[in-house]
Amino acid sequence: MHQTLSEVAQLVGGRLVGKGDQVITGISGIKEAVEGDLTFLANPKYLPLASTTKASAIIVGRDVLIEGKFVIQTDNPSMAFARIVGFIKENMTPRIKGIHPKAVVAEGAVIGDRVGIGPFVVIEDGVCIGKDTVICAGVFVGQKSLIGAGSLIYPNVTIRENVSIGDRVIIHSGTVVGSDGFGYLQVGDRHEKIPQMGTVVVEDDVEIGACVTIDRARFDKTLIGRGTKIDNLVQIAHNVRTGENCLIIALAGIAGSARIGNNAIIAGQVGVAGHVTVGDRAVVAAQSGITKDVDPGAMMFGTPAEEYSKATRVMAHVKRLPRYAEEIKELRKKVQILEDKLGNTK
Amino acid sequence: MHQTLSEVAQLVGGRLVGKGDQVITGISGIKEAVEGDLTFLANPKYLPLASTTKASAIIVGRDVLIEGKFVIQTDNPSMAFARIVGFIKENMTPRIKGIHPKAVVAEGAVIGDRVGIGPFVVIEDGVCIGKDTVICAGVFVGQKSLIGAGSLIYPNVTIRENVSIGDRVIIHSGTVVGSDGFGYLQVGDRHEKIPQMGTVVVEDDVEIGACVTIDRARFDKTLIGRGTKIDNLVQIAHNVRTGENCLIIALAGIAGSARIGNNAIIAGQVGVAGHVTVGDRAVVAAQSGITKDVDPGAMMFGTPAEEYSKATRVMAHVKRLPRYAEEIKELRKKVQILEDKLGNTK
Amino acid sequence: MHQTLSEVAQLVGGRLVGKGDQVITGISGIKEAVEGDLTFLANPKYLPLASTTKASAIIVGRDVLIEGKFVIQTDNPSMAFARIVGFIKENMTPRIKGIHPKAVVAEGAVIGDRVGIGPFVVIEDGVCIGKDTVICAGVFVGQKSLIGAGSLIYPNVTIRENVSIGDRVIIHSGTVVGSDGFGYLQVGDRHEKIPQMGTVVVEDDVEIGACVTIDRARFDKTLIGRGTKIDNLVQIAHNVRTGENCLIIALAGIAGSARIGNNAIIAGQVGVAGHVTVGDRAVVAAQSGITKDVDPGAMMFGTPAEEYSKATRVMAHVKRLPRYAEEIKELRKKVQILEDKLGNTK
Repeated sequence: MHQTLSEVAQLVGGRLVGKGDQVITGISGIKEAVEGDLTFLANPKYLPLASTTKASAIIVGRDVLIEGKFVIQTDNPSMAFARIVGFIKENMTPRIKGIHPKAVVAEGAVIGDRVGIGPFVVIEDGVCIGKDTVICAGVFVGQKSLIGAGSLIYPNVTIRENVSIGDRVIIHSGTVVGSDGFGYLQVGDRHEKIPQMGTVVVEDDVEIGACVTIDRARFDKTLIGRGTKIDNLVQIAHNVRTGENCLIIALAGIAGSARIGNNAIIAGQVGVAGHVTVGDRAVVAAQSGITKDVDPGAMMFGTPAEEYSKATRVMAHVKRLPRYAEEIKELRKKVQILEDKLGNTK
Repeated sequence: MHQTLSEVAQLVGGRLVGKGDQVITGISGIKEAVEGDLTFLANPKYLPLASTTKASAIIVGRDVLIEGKFVIQTDNPSMAFARIVGFIKENMTPRIKGIHPKAVVAEGAVIGDRVGIGPFVVIEDGVCIGKDTVICAGVFVGQKSLIGAGSLIYPNVTIRENVSIGDRVIIHSGTVVGSDGFGYLQVGDRHEKIPQMGTVVVEDDVEIGACVTIDRARFDKTLIGRGTKIDNLVQIAHNVRTGENCLIIALAGIAGSARIGNNAIIAGQVGVAGHVTVGDRAVVAAQSGITKDVDPGAMMFGTPAEEYSKATRVMAHVKRLPRYAEEIKELRKKVQILEDKLGNTK
Repeated sequence: MHQTLSEVAQLVGGRLVGKGDQVITGISGIKEAVEGDLTFLANPKYLPLASTTKASAIIVGRDVLIEGKFVIQTDNPSMAFARIVGFIKENMTPRIKGIHPKAVVAEGAVIGDRVGIGPFVVIEDGVCIGKDTVICAGVFVGQKSLIGAGSLIYPNVTIRENVSIGDRVIIHSGTVVGSDGFGYLQVGDRHEKIPQMGTVVVEDDVEIGACVTIDRARFDKTLIGRGTKIDNLVQIAHNVRTGENCLIIALAGIAGSARIGNNAIIAGQVGVAGHVTVGDRAVVAAQSGITKDVDPGAMMFGTPAEEYSKATRVMAHVKRLPRYAEEIKELRKKVQILEDKLGNTK
């Protein structure tokens, strides 16, 4: 990285207080920063660190000044910083350009402008890939699947046939989109496979972590709503529909046909039972098990999950159980004594 | 899809009530169906939908008639429908034919008739693949591993050396069969690797989901019994043996040397401890932790798991804990009052 | 396998009691052994099996003799046996030699002596691979990543750019090292991606199971300490640091910026919350949820986790809740009777 402070200020639309030709050679957190680094200050509690950081410049809020430091004032320092980081990262990592000679791309596939396809990629017949999308090494895209524009599919992802991926979608390595839903018909002791005829639709601006599995629907579609972000090792079963802008954290599992509302947060290792609806903006705490519908905006905890404040109140009582047991024992003794005393009054 | 109703009736051995030359152009659930679709009615609670569905024909039970609709009467509408769907799906998806020139197949490998091998597949020396099996793009099959006939290995699966896979087995993308078991010898503070010399045996008619991990045994074998179905992201540790026709749902983990009986159901996110035996036809509810042997036919719930009815009874009491705490408090007051009253009678 | 007993004794530095030219043709557990096998006896409880095993020789402790059996006496029979098994396994499995013509290795990559690279491997520019390391089929190594000497990367692993892997590291199939950390900035209802600029450092002698995901740091690094062993399907979030010689069991999830001390054990399906510190030698029981710092040496259990003995004491009380409820009911009746009796004494 080699950028002047005025260039950085211009990139984020900020106001520079300091030397415009100061060169920034790296970016870093406020604690770890070394000379030449750019850092940022979003949370006032880190203000004391701002005077002692070794960073050469700090992105700060409007009207904030740090004695003895060059600052760039912006409305939202976190966002400004994230944008610079994104800009640098993009310019640091050379993109795949063109179709690698060791990829296998079906003649019937439609490949947009400036698409990059890495070695050992397989693009089957009828696939459509939008402009500026990058498909990294070892990715498989099954027949008739669609991938929008400006998307980034990391190495060794599997996208099965007839799946639809939107624009600006990021899918991390090892992930599988469109595997068969887990559906069987019990015939005597055996389980006969129910073919999964449906598809998966991943809307625009979704990001999917590494080693995530998203099953195709029995009929119709499994849907990941626009802007939803899925962490690593998450299971999305057939016919699930998530709303827009959800966060689904690592090792969570959403069972078949469950519905997740917009802006919901499903924390790590949560299980959501089949056919259940989780309302908009609901938050499910880590390791909880959702067994029935959740109201919009509710916060849930426990297995089976209850409303958070109720669950934690019950848990507080559970911790006090040894004391309660002691008290019950004591009460029994006291009542016994009372009964004995009153015995002769019967 | 383009099939006449008499062709469909013949395929499922059903009795057609309606026009034999009516053409069916799609298949669908009863709610989503459009004109030209075939659907089915298995559950009587959906009977009202049968009169209003836009489907052109409905597969129903024996003797069922729907006013104004063409029907195909069968003993088991769900199964009949699943079979048609399977027939259509098979004819819809072009199979891989022959060995792709960009696969690497060792000379010493034995490849059966009509086997399909996709691009970037690696088949090592001594591997044997039965007739009609399909190995999709990017799959690795290590030396001396055996795969039976009529099996389907989806893209980017890894099958390590010396593993044995049966006939009609389906393995979904990202899955790893035969990785080393997690075994170490503690030497001071360090963990010295215990080589895992055993193998994995996957019997006939097993289906394994996406991103599943099945470790090879220390000695002998890890065994997945005939007809067992494993969902996505499941961990099967070394030396585990599952019975036949089990269902093991997403994100479950079975620890080393555990035994699962026939027709058992291990629900999502369940953990089964090492060396434990789960009996035939036992059912373990989602997120439970099995720490000791489970009787055949038992239903278990909780961490550590208890018999289901016992676990839910205890849970009902847990929810009432705030009330119990209140009652204990009240009792203490009342007993205090009684003691005070009786004090002068001492 | 074809080794004489004197060769075996020499390999482990043991003392042979028996015929030096006896040929060993296999290795096995003490129960499953057949004639020609070598086995071992580490736990005295298996002593009765030692007389009846069909094995042709047994590795035993110093001074142990088994009537009618050839034995090799060593200080640590388990370790001696593991070493023989390792020796045999290494000689049994032909290593990949040289760079496969169907690998894509960038000109700018530096490949050490005796490195083996399988088919369909991608090694990007600026990658450095130490001597004697083996990279199996279908592995991707992103630009400028480093892999030390004597490491073994199994098929279909993804190692993203700028990642550092130490010496003698083993990584199993399907695993992803260096995927982006899960970090977003909320902007209205949307989540704007925070670029993850940091890296992952995997120190020497680490083993990582199958389908594990280790995210790169936002800045700085995610760190897996020397000698730590990670089981299958584990999630390590961005900026996590594990100590040395930890064991992290299948399906565990360690959230962002958590610190795990040296020699800690994180059991299966455990969740560790973000920014929490787990002390050296702490043990977290399966399925627990760590929500706050854990003292060195502590043993934890439950969600949220408590000190083990406390958690199990509370659980024992929970199981007795139906009885407590009964007792409370009884006490209320008795107190009512007492109150009624004393009523006229008011």
